[in-house]
Amino acid sequence: MNALPPLLYEDVVRRALQEDLGLAGDLTTDAIVPSGTRAEALLVAREAGRIAGMDAAVLAFRLLDPGIACELRAADGLDVEAGATLAVLRGEARALLTAERTALNLLGRLSGIATVTASVVRSLHGLPTRVVCTRKTTPGLRVLEKQAVRAGGGFNHRFGLDAAVLVKDNHRAIAGGIGEAVERARRGVGHMVKIEVEVDTLAELQEALSVGVDAVLLDNMSPATLRQAVRLVDGRVLTEASGGITPANAREIAETGVDLISIGWLTHSAPSLDVALDIT
Amino acid sequence: MNALPPLLYEDVVRRALQEDLGLAGDLTTDAIVPSGTRAEALLVAREAGRIAGMDAAVLAFRLLDPGIACELRAADGLDVEAGATLAVLRGEARALLTAERTALNLLGRLSGIATVTASVVRSLHGLPTRVVCTRKTTPGLRVLEKQAVRAGGGFNHRFGLDAAVLVKDNHRAIAGGIGEAVERARRGVGHMVKIEVEVDTLAELQEALSVGVDAVLLDNMSPATLRQAVRLVDGRVLTEASGGITPANAREIAETGVDLISIGWLTHSAPSLDVALDIT
Amino acid sequence: MNALPPLLYEDVVRRALQEDLGLAGDLTTDAIVPSGTRAEALLVAREAGRIAGMDAAVLAFRLLDPGIACELRAADGLDVEAGATLAVLRGEARALLTAERTALNLLGRLSGIATVTASVVRSLHGLPTRVVCTRKTTPGLRVLEKQAVRAGGGFNHRFGLDAAVLVKDNHRAIAGGIGEAVERARRGVGHMVKIEVEVDTLAELQEALSVGVDAVLLDNMSPATLRQAVRLVDGRVLTEASGGITPANAREIAETGVDLISIGWLTHSAPSLDVALDIT
Amino acid sequence: MNALPPLLYEDVVRRALQEDLGLAGDLTTDAIVPSGTRAEALLVAREAGRIAGMDAAVLAFRLLDPGIACELRAADGLDVEAGATLAVLRGEARALLTAERTALNLLGRLSGIATVTASVVRSLHGLPTRVVCTRKTTPGLRVLEKQAVRAGGGFNHRFGLDAAVLVKDNHRAIAGGIGEAVERARRGVGHMVKIEVEVDTLAELQEALSVGVDAVLLDNMSPATLRQAVRLVDGRVLTEASGGITPANAREIAETGVDLISIGWLTHSAPSLDVALDIT
Amino acid sequence: MNALPPLLYEDVVRRALQEDLGLAGDLTTDAIVPSGTRAEALLVAREAGRIAGMDAAVLAFRLLDPGIACELRAADGLDVEAGATLAVLRGEARALLTAERTALNLLGRLSGIATVTASVVRSLHGLPTRVVCTRKTTPGLRVLEKQAVRAGGGFNHRFGLDAAVLVKDNHRAIAGGIGEAVERARRGVGHMVKIEVEVDTLAELQEALSVGVDAVLLDNMSPATLRQAVRLVDGRVLTEASGGITPANAREIAETGVDLISIGWLTHSAPSLDVALDIT
Amino acid sequence: MNALPPLLYEDVVRRALQEDLGLAGDLTTDAIVPSGTRAEALLVAREAGRIAGMDAAVLAFRLLDPGIACELRAADGLDVEAGATLAVLRGEARALLTAERTALNLLGRLSGIATVTASVVRSLHGLPTRVVCTRKTTPGLRVLEKQAVRAGGGFNHRFGLDAAVLVKDNHRAIAGGIGEAVERARRGVGHMVKIEVEVDTLAELQEALSVGVDAVLLDNMSPATLRQAVRLVDGRVLTEASGGITPANAREIAETGVDLISIGWLTHSAPSLDVALDIT
Repeated sequence: MNALPPLLYEDVVRRALQEDLGLAGDLTTDAIVPSGTRAEALLVAREAGRIAGMDAAVLAFRLLDPGIACELRAADGLDVEAGATLAVLRGEARALLTAERTALNLLGRLSGIATVTASVVRSLHGLPTRVVCTRKTTPGLRVLEKQAVRAGGGFNHRFGLDAAVLVKDNHRAIAGGIGEAVERARRGVGHMVKIEVEVDTLAELQEALSVGVDAVLLDNMSPATLRQAVRLVDGRVLTEASGGITPANAREIAETGVDLISIGWLTHSAPSLDVALDIT
Repeated sequence: MNALPPLLYEDVVRRALQEDLGLAGDLTTDAIVPSGTRAEALLVAREAGRIAGMDAAVLAFRLLDPGIACELRAADGLDVEAGATLAVLRGEARALLTAERTALNLLGRLSGIATVTASVVRSLHGLPTRVVCTRKTTPGLRVLEKQAVRAGGGFNHRFGLDAAVLVKDNHRAIAGGIGEAVERARRGVGHMVKIEVEVDTLAELQEALSVGVDAVLLDNMSPATLRQAVRLVDGRVLTEASGGITPANAREIAETGVDLISIGWLTHSAPSLDVALDIT
Repeated sequence: MNALPPLLYEDVVRRALQEDLGLAGDLTTDAIVPSGTRAEALLVAREAGRIAGMDAAVLAFRLLDPGIACELRAADGLDVEAGATLAVLRGEARALLTAERTALNLLGRLSGIATVTASVVRSLHGLPTRVVCTRKTTPGLRVLEKQAVRAGGGFNHRFGLDAAVLVKDNHRAIAGGIGEAVERARRGVGHMVKIEVEVDTLAELQEALSVGVDAVLLDNMSPATLRQAVRLVDGRVLTEASGGITPANAREIAETGVDLISIGWLTHSAPSLDVALDIT
Repeated sequence: MNALPPLLYEDVVRRALQEDLGLAGDLTTDAIVPSGTRAEALLVAREAGRIAGMDAAVLAFRLLDPGIACELRAADGLDVEAGATLAVLRGEARALLTAERTALNLLGRLSGIATVTASVVRSLHGLPTRVVCTRKTTPGLRVLEKQAVRAGGGFNHRFGLDAAVLVKDNHRAIAGGIGEAVERARRGVGHMVKIEVEVDTLAELQEALSVGVDAVLLDNMSPATLRQAVRLVDGRVLTEASGGITPANAREIAETGVDLISIGWLTHSAPSLDVALDIT
Repeated sequence: MNALPPLLYEDVVRRALQEDLGLAGDLTTDAIVPSGTRAEALLVAREAGRIAGMDAAVLAFRLLDPGIACELRAADGLDVEAGATLAVLRGEARALLTAERTALNLLGRLSGIATVTASVVRSLHGLPTRVVCTRKTTPGLRVLEKQAVRAGGGFNHRFGLDAAVLVKDNHRAIAGGIGEAVERARRGVGHMVKIEVEVDTLAELQEALSVGVDAVLLDNMSPATLRQAVRLVDGRVLTEASGGITPANAREIAETGVDLISIGWLTHSAPSLDVALDIT
Repeated sequence: MNALPPLLYEDVVRRALQEDLGLAGDLTTDAIVPSGTRAEALLVAREAGRIAGMDAAVLAFRLLDPGIACELRAADGLDVEAGATLAVLRGEARALLTAERTALNLLGRLSGIATVTASVVRSLHGLPTRVVCTRKTTPGLRVLEKQAVRAGGGFNHRFGLDAAVLVKDNHRAIAGGIGEAVERARRGVGHMVKIEVEVDTLAELQEALSVGVDAVLLDNMSPATLRQAVRLVDGRVLTEASGGITPANAREIAETGVDLISIGWLTHSAPSLDVALDIT
């Protein structure tokens, strides 16, 4: 996959390092390992999974020693087996030891998201349905987590509140109806902004279709209702199923014919992938 | 529990909001909800759990509207049932809607950590063993996640590399032995810094005890070996079991008599607690 | 118009103040005006125009004296005559004098943009064409300048590179054609992202229509060609005229029937509106 | 001209890039142009003018790809013809395309200021009068705009409120007269700070001369009055004409014999110079 | 004396607090003192001295508890006896205890500078000579230290490299002489910038006078030579003695008739004033 | 000694430079010294002392010219004679002149601290007592000043409030006694946090020993009482003498047998070491 420009995430990595180093730095390593000691270290996966976050992880080491040499064995988007070497790093032993935890925290979390996403994507094999993430990301890590979802084969819903209109129940209630809410949105935003509306029932779906939107979010509908909704829409707008979707029921939902299924779980509850740094 | 000074986390919340608002802000709400519309909203738990992160969540709303009134119904450290109202918020409807996701992302993640921690702590009922977290926290969120572990009844291992010495295998290898590594650490750090050594075998444990440390991290030992280790230590230093501990086997490990069990899983893989904002 | 949350621009105003105060602050005022001196000041327009940036301007004063009382006489989006009072400010004389230039620099520039925009919008009276701005904004001020365009009755094109796809000539060249470029974009981005393509000829327009896009940017076409383009498109996608459009020829362009005309000039070359602060 | 140390403006350029990239980065380029694609691009002037801001513009590209090679064909302070190539850039195609707008926004604005300044300076050919800018600069860009004025052959008035004393009418009013105001300033500031007083009439000028100042700002005086003022001053202090000076009347004002004419218009209303990036 | 706007120093105080709190905050106070405990505390001087830095010190407490009530008993610029109460603070006991050291570090250092300055100023009683500080200030604290010098009755030399021209020996050497150096400076800087030249001998002084400068820095001259220099200058420019001046020899230097004596020692080596916080 | 990772202090150096450069930069050097002029400069000690802060000082030059070549002749922790060359720098003359003061301010202050510390350490020759610093450091410079103390042969007490528990009189008073205060601390903090208690009398010392702590701070005790305290403790916990300790009485205090003497004076009142930059 294409890499992100470091400008988008280097502050995240720098802050993560500073959080771990505090004021006094790595007391243990500074006391035990002399400056100038060279070492080689392997980034390894302790369990099988889909990799994401390699660039951010490597940057953690480089922020402590710009001279770290890194030989990449895996890239974002790759599936690896347990025990696989992801990268070989050579440089200041102190930098390798001090940045280890920061790098692993980033790599483990992001690969965890990619791994879960990939497993859901795989479960939809043969179906055209796209798996998309939500805004339920870890505060401060959205840009990296959205990238991890793409590494897992998923797609990104809007990055933030500024990226598209999504009319939810509260907006409808305040505006006094779907029609009025969508109308206000269309008048208020630029021509390059898409509009999606959340609907809970087929009646609401009908109303949304009648006012003209780009996509409908079918919230918490049963597979049977989703099927009806897809028939009703009949290809006129994108259909997105949402609410309570898990790896377990994703295929059943996708088989209803919706274009997209969105899963907050991918980013807010994916367990970390077990990765480690082995000094050789 | 005691609250954290906002100085410790307000940048985290501000950055989370800015990440979601981007340059253009909340396109949907700004187009649909007029300035000056007042609303009341309930922060609710959709599932049972232990609460953490209330202050950070409420701050998200206040950063958009300093005039938000907040009536707290639950505080960090409290167990709540599914459906429980955690807080009643009143103020600008726009602020409530725009900050909703940021607040929920914080509250859900932190309460998820507290909930998992509380469940492990409960599983050790009657035993003196302390449950402690690690440095395997989400980059950027450590201060809040450490607080969430305390809300769950757990304790904090060191906050960062600057807070204590933990001699790991790589340090031992570079120093050429546990004795030399500990000696270097003792010479290099201040008198208020504790020293813990990771040991993998009883022989290493013996060596660590002979050089004098404050605590030993017994890494990846079986319950049987842990029992032997505890007997060997005989109360002279703190004993911490670590490696592969899950909610499922925590009690078995604790029953070996170790003083502490440390679990990275609490922070790197706890699923989010399901929380929501209901406009009333 | 709806106000922006201060979170979106307070750093801009703070930095502008710090830039003017430097390390030593306002040498003149500090030496001449005693702390505690109260004053009343009027923000006035020295020439007729459309107002924008009031909130940012008032914030400049409040960052120096949070107790400044401000009685607004004009709001963003209002047309005022020369001599009109925009706001009455009361508070510390030192704060009023020290923040004066920062406030006026913001208000003058943003009102200048709103004024120019409003004049173009007025020139299109009776036509359905929308006037939109571009990304040719002042570095660091985009959020405020986009708001100023809205205050002038214009609309916003995408806020940044992250907000929509706009396939330009260089993208087409690298991809090897419009079709391939659009195809790559569609595969690569989320479902909530619109795609617009810049075309220079009717042949290119035809190609763009055949691959399916949301909008076409008709670049540097003569009014005659624009008319043909509009006929060719026949309402299937949005049409945007761009390139060399000025207040002088805007109506002629709009009369070709395009949906939008985009004008970089609104933000990169609008002269400042003459505003002043009068101490009473 | 001498270059500014990047430390003075790199934050400005970084923030400008981040403003344009947002959270998600350049959606279009990232989707269409593969990493590793190399390109050559020309920075060109589409119209004749005086160049300023080359370093800041080039930095925008380098912040995305530190390996960009840049062959400068023009430097700040140079006059160029329409069509002139200003620089040849070679490197990552993605970096060139993504930073393009940020670089052009900086270069166009700053060259616009230099161009207007140069035209005023040229109009004073043969006269000793210096053209100076004011504090009416774009919020956040002062250091670069002051440099652009110098590139245009102008000089800088004080950079900020901390750089010199300028007693204005409001200061005089609060102090109760020019004499008292100047006296307070002289007592309050260090010995390396110059003092200038704004005067509106010849009587005020007389008063200012009698209390001893370094310069007088002759505000909004007619050419006839300016001539009288210059005679009255008779070389004892610097004389600066200000207020309503435009390129059109600058020579007439300068011919009155004042030492300096200051023009806010140079920075707050100069139209951008048309510059572009051509991928070759 | 006039107060500084907090905008000029609040980042300094915030960073100082964050430096002391680290990630985990005040472990001692948080564990021992319950939230909600109220306390009253006295800021007291343990030794006699001149006070400076009160606002910054009080801000340290307010950043932890905005509700802290503060009754000031002393202000910057006041001489106090040992044991004097400087302020009475009431509020959250935790905030008072946690911010104590940060507040005292600021207050002690700044009052130390004011005290030393005041003692030098007193030693010059009856002489017109001004005592001025230099740029030899503590990195990061210049704005507060310059204010402390003023609180001590001293005056400020330039705040930074951007505030005036000071031609030193190295500049002269590179330019090839005082005349050429001054000439370059005069051509290069704005009309509101003063020019001072450092001279080591009477011959150099003569040269400086012949090219016209605003002030001369007489570096490391004996009292006898200084007297000659003052006679030579004869009031045409300001004379500043510098180099090796201490509280002990300041009066002897001042009696030579120089206008100013500048002392780096005031800021780089003043011992801290002993101040404390007593909980009542 | 081991070097600190630049990540820990580069912001300090950058801010110090920005503070000195302001908005306009080094007016003198920019006007007089042409870009491209190369120079060689020596960092020299004008008086004898112990060096600290070399890395931070050199970084100041490198932030202005990354190409500065630096040949180190002295490192942190080395004693040098008056006149000793500490480093030879070669590069842009402008960078050398502009960063000079920032570099010297850092180097002089930190070497001053190291020099004072070294002199106290030397005065304890033959005794096992450790000299430790306190939290009475310069706001913003703690990490560098703690390193300077180590360069002087001293040791660091806790870096901040987050690094260990130190129960002071106010904590004891609020808790209602030493026993309760220590008990609360032990319950509240993690197992890697040491606990020290400040005691003023032998009775309090007895109480502290009975509740079990890691160290006792013997505050303001006479040498005779300190001797009794040491006997009473009898090696069970670390003993630290504090309060009113100066270079003059340090040996007398150390001879009482305490393990540590802590001296705030090392950081809050050490005079700067005289260092200079000589252009060759």
